[in-house]
This record gives sequence, C-alpha cells and structure tokens, in this order.
Amino acid sequence: AEEGDDASLEDPWQDDEYFGSYGTLRLHLEMLSDRSRTETYRQVIVSNSASLRDKVVMDLGCGTGIISMFCAQLAKPSMVYAVEASSMAEHTRQLVKQNGCEEVVTVLQGRAEELELPEQVDILVSEWMGNCLLFEFMVESVLLARDRWLRDGGVMWPSSAALALVPCQADSYYTETMAFWERPYGLDFTPLQPLAQQEFFTKPKFSHLIDPEDCLCAPCDVICLNMYTVQVRDLEEMTGEFQFCVEKPGIFHGFTAWFTVLFESLEMGGATVELNTGPNSDPTHWKQTLFMLDRPIQVYAGDSIHGNIVLRRNPVWRRHMTVALHWTINSNTDDSQAGTKSFPMWR
Amino acid sequence: AEEGDDASLEDPWQDDEYFGSYGTLRLHLEMLSDRSRTETYRQVIVSNSASLRDKVVMDLGCGTGIISMFCAQLAKPSMVYAVEASSMAEHTRQLVKQNGCEEVVTVLQGRAEELELPEQVDILVSEWMGNCLLFEFMVESVLLARDRWLRDGGVMWPSSAALALVPCQADSYYTETMAFWERPYGLDFTPLQPLAQQEFFTKPKFSHLIDPEDCLCAPCDVICLNMYTVQVRDLEEMTGEFQFCVEKPGIFHGFTAWFTVLFESLEMGGATVELNTGPNSDPTHWKQTLFMLDRPIQVYAGDSIHGNIVLRRNPVWRRHMTVALHWTINSNTDDSQAGTKSFPMWR
Ligand SMILES: [Ca+2]
Ligand SMILES: [Ca+2]
Repeated sequence: AEEGDDASLEDPWQDDEYFGSYGTLRLHLEMLSDRSRTETYRQVIVSNSASLRDKVVMDLGCGTGIISMFCAQLAKPSMVYAVEASSMAEHTRQLVKQNGCEEVVTVLQGRAEELELPEQVDILVSEWMGNCLLFEFMVESVLLARDRWLRDGGVMWPSSAALALVPCQADSYYTETMAFWERPYGLDFTPLQPLAQQEFFTKPKFSHLIDPEDCLCAPCDVICLNMYTVQVRDLEEMTGEFQFCVEKPGIFHGFTAWFTVLFESLEMGGATVELNTGPNSDPTHWKQTLFMLDRPIQVYAGDSIHGNIVLRRNPVWRRHMTVALHWTINSNTDDSQAGTKSFPMWR
Repeated sequence: AEEGDDASLEDPWQDDEYFGSYGTLRLHLEMLSDRSRTETYRQVIVSNSASLRDKVVMDLGCGTGIISMFCAQLAKPSMVYAVEASSMAEHTRQLVKQNGCEEVVTVLQGRAEELELPEQVDILVSEWMGNCLLFEFMVESVLLARDRWLRDGGVMWPSSAALALVPCQADSYYTETMAFWERPYGLDFTPLQPLAQQEFFTKPKFSHLIDPEDCLCAPCDVICLNMYTVQVRDLEEMTGEFQFCVEKPGIFHGFTAWFTVLFESLEMGGATVELNTGPNSDPTHWKQTLFMLDRPIQVYAGDSIHGNIVLRRNPVWRRHMTVALHWTINSNTDDSQAGTKSFPMWR
C-alpha cells in the first residue's frame, strides 16, 4: 500500500506539497516560458489599460508577480494586491522593487482563505487553471476570494471557462505503450499487455499534444463555468453532455480534453480576449489531456458518438477528481456500442 | 528539511524505491524501446552463438528476461539463470514460458547478494550501467555475483566500461534556465538568477542530448573499468585526468559525460561489440549527463583545458555519488583560469 493514502495522517489539500512545489523556480519558469499564456494576460491588461486607471486589482496566486507588474507598467491602477501562498512571495517582493512597481503593487504572502485587505477590489485576476481545467482546484480559492473581496459589479478575469472534448486517434501512444508488446525483437510479450493497460491507460495522460489531424471531428464544449455565478459546491460534481459526428474514418483510441478561458473587456465595445489551449492554437504548457479507451474502436464518417462526462471531485483529496466518461457509438453499418470508463486524476 | 534524509530511519540502499520502480512497466518499456541498447545485447549473443553452445549463463538484473531469451533462441546454452530482484520476475517467468524458453531459462527472484545456484557460470551478462556509468551502483551487485559465481576463466559481458567527458557548449539550456531571467516580457527578473543557478546548475542535468557540434573538442575517456579486475572497494572513489585542446572558438558552458562498454568476443578473432552512448552514436535512453559551470567562459581554438574528475560514492546513500570536477584553462592570450565544482548525484 502506498504511504500517505491515509487522509487522517495527511493534509487532504496536500498544501505542503502543493505550495512547496511553487516555492521552487521550475514551475514558474515553465509558466513564464509559456508565451501563449503569459502574452494573453499581457494582452488583457494592454487592451483594458484605459479602464484599469484608478482601479483596485487583486492578482491571486501571483507567482513571480508578472501579471501584477503588467498592470503597474502598462496601466495606471491605484493598487494591485499580489497574493501568493508559496515562499516565492519573498522573491516576488524583490522583483516588484527591482522593476519600480512597489508604489502600486503590494505583495501579500498567505492563502487566499486567510487574506485580509483594507478594501474590496474592482478586478480579480488569476491564472488558476489546471489540467482538464479543474485539476488541483485552485479555482476554489478564487471563488472564495471573489465572494469575500470582489465589490458588487467587480470584474473577474477570466470571466468564463470551458472544458472542451473530442474523440481522437492516439496511434503513437497506443503503439508505444500497447502494440509494442506484440512482437518486440521477435518475441511474444503479450502477457504484459494487461499490465500495460493498467499502467498506461488507467489514469489520463497529461502533457499530450494532439495533432489536429487526429481529432475525429470538431470538439465540443462539455462544461462551462461562469466565473461570476459558479459556487464552490458546484465543483463537487460537474456533468456535461456530448454529441459528435465522426468526420472521417479512423481509430477511436480515446478522448482528448483541454480548456478555453475568456476575459471580458472593460471598454465599451472592446474585444473579448481568449486563451485557448486546444490543438488548433499555439501549444501551452498545459498541452492537452488524453483519456485512453481500453480497446481502440474503428469508426467511420457519419458515425455518431454521444454520451456524457462527469467530473467528480475527490471527497477526501480535495485537489483531485475522477473523470467518468460514458459513450455510445451509433453507426449505419454496425450495431451500436456503448462503453464507460472512470479515470482517477490522480487519486 | 526533506523527509527521509536521516539514514537511520531509511534503507541506505533505498531498495524499496529502487526495486519498486523496476516492478512497474514504465522503466522496462523505456529500456526495451531503446533499440541501440537492446540490439547491442542481441548482437553480442548472435555473434557469439557458436561459443555459447552448452555454456552456463547468468543474466543479472534480467528485467523482462529479454537477454536470457535472446540466449535461448539464438544460441544453445545449457542453462541461463535469469536473476531479477523486483516483482517483475513473476512476469518474466510467464514470458519465458510463452516464448518456449523454459527448458533453458530459469528465472530466480532475489537479490544478487542472496543468490543460490547449483553451479558456477561460464558467462555473466548484465545491463547494469546507469547515468555517468555508475549511478545507482548496480555494478556492485554484478561484482559480488562475479566473485561468487563466475568460474575461473569465465567471461564478463560487458568486459570493460569507460566514462567519457568533453567540455561543451549548452547554449539552449543556459538560455532557457539562466539568460531567460534577464528581460522576460520587458521586465528585469535578474534577482532570480541566484535561485536559478541553485536550482538548475547545482546537480547534473540527466537526459541531456548534446549535439556533436556543441562539443568543443574530441572527448576523452576519464575512467575505465576492467570488469574482471575492478573491486567493490575501488568504487568508493574513482579519479580520472583529462587534457583537452579546444578545436574551435565557443562558449564553455560545462562538461558532458557518457559511457561506452565493450563486449569481448568468445570466438577466435571475433569482433568486439561496443555500446557507445555518446553524441556520435544513436541516442539511447541514457542520453548524456550535463554538468554546468556556474558561469560560461569564452574559449578559443588552441586553448587547453586540463584537470581531473573524482567520482566519490556517497558513504551513506549507497546508490548515490558526487562528481567533482577541477579544471584549468590555459590560453595563448588570456591569463589561465582555474575552477572547481562538486555535483551531488543526487545526495
Ligand atoms: Ca496553473
Ligand atoms: Ca540500467
């Protein structure tokens, strides 16, 4: 039995592990090096700079403080509260000074839940999204901060978020992890295939980069969050429906998921800014998340794949969830086939 | 303080962790998918098949048993003892049967140190090499098995091993981890550079693939092991000298290390087989190991870089070591510069 599976002995939020990892540079470097992500937030600030004048902003989970410094350097807010729970906050304070932003940006080290501010804020900006949008559930901290610190009529950035899903081929992954055992070096290693299925197909594959060619049809948004109205309790179980029409013959190896978030404009008639982490946009550090079926299924143009997805938050390990997929394939030629599979992510 | 740094509370060999990881498929898949590695062992068996007739072979740390099955299918040994400490051994037994090798191959689950065989062996074959050749020190188990179970005049495969070193450029790694902080998104993040140095340059970088163009000169073998004569006690501290002559102007960012092993032929006049994990051979799953200097140094054609390397086995954590590098650069134009740096790997 794995050590630490006993919640009574361990923090169900795993905060030491979670915030500990954000106390090192590696994750911050990965996020900052992600130009699509970082330039999108920069673009949000630039395109709303007039409306940000004299506003009070909270940047929740600010990391190195990049978004806060964009605010200070590219707009004229009266105050930016840069909130960071990890020990990175000390360095963030230094960076704010080094870049001459200390008049505007106040770095606060602490958890969102324990935050004390002298005033409410006009804008709550945060980069809280994880794999499959919700993984690690930083969104809960954002919603708590919203309910406590965002003034009536204040703005949320992102303003909405959607989880997208598409049935797909994943031939290289299937070949490398499953077909591999069929005849490596002239030997029969098929007795290892049940082990391979257990090890490689039980949990979703993070950091998958799907080629648009491997999407069997157009993706579909299965879950949408309105960041003004969604409640923490809604996160316990989120359900979405899908209905796909296969566009070309191929092998249905699994589903790929990713997210899109929108930033509404503060300016009259201003354009909404989008961060899309899907296969038709520039790759981000999130890449996409692949859910492999146990067995590949041949599908044909015109087949329909419909069903639903349920994201069930782990009742014990609060940063984890299970993704349950249920699907039915209807084709003109074959009988219909249904399947269901639950993927722990990670517990 | 990191949990488990107290050796009194933890196994200094970390065998649960070490053999635990070899009980899953991921590492075996990585090794089997490494065609250079696996085909080399296959080639050793094929090119010695006549001499293997009626011989007794031990395959130590056999994993999925691939080398043992090569022996059984491509030669006619009288017996192959396939020894594996991890729980993979159960699956290996099944694979041996599935491939009709059970008459010849006997799978034994257990540590090399506790092995009991009914006879001595003619040939001891093993794939024991780790990063920088020695990391994880599986070689100790091989030497113990040699001393106890290899008959006088028996053969070791590999028969010898060498660690190669070259001074090199590592411009992308330097740019991504250190130069990055100079002006990201128009901001000054240089206060993070000491942190970056600590986090990215203190330990060696595993899984580095050096472009041959980034070698500042020809590599040099700094440590050589004769697998017949090397003793376990010799592993505590191994020292090597180097003397390089820079062939072209460039930035000296660090040293890259890798290993080569040789398999002597059993046949009269037969060719030695080599497995070279360096930048001029096909990449293997070991790739190369990069040791970054704290500061890059401009060097010119004709400069000499000489010094020594010391591999010091960790007295507590027996699978770990420290690599100490000491170098002096002599140039025709500048004063000579000397430097020294010790890299824990990992403790
Ligand atoms: Ca994130
Ligand atoms: Ca190895």
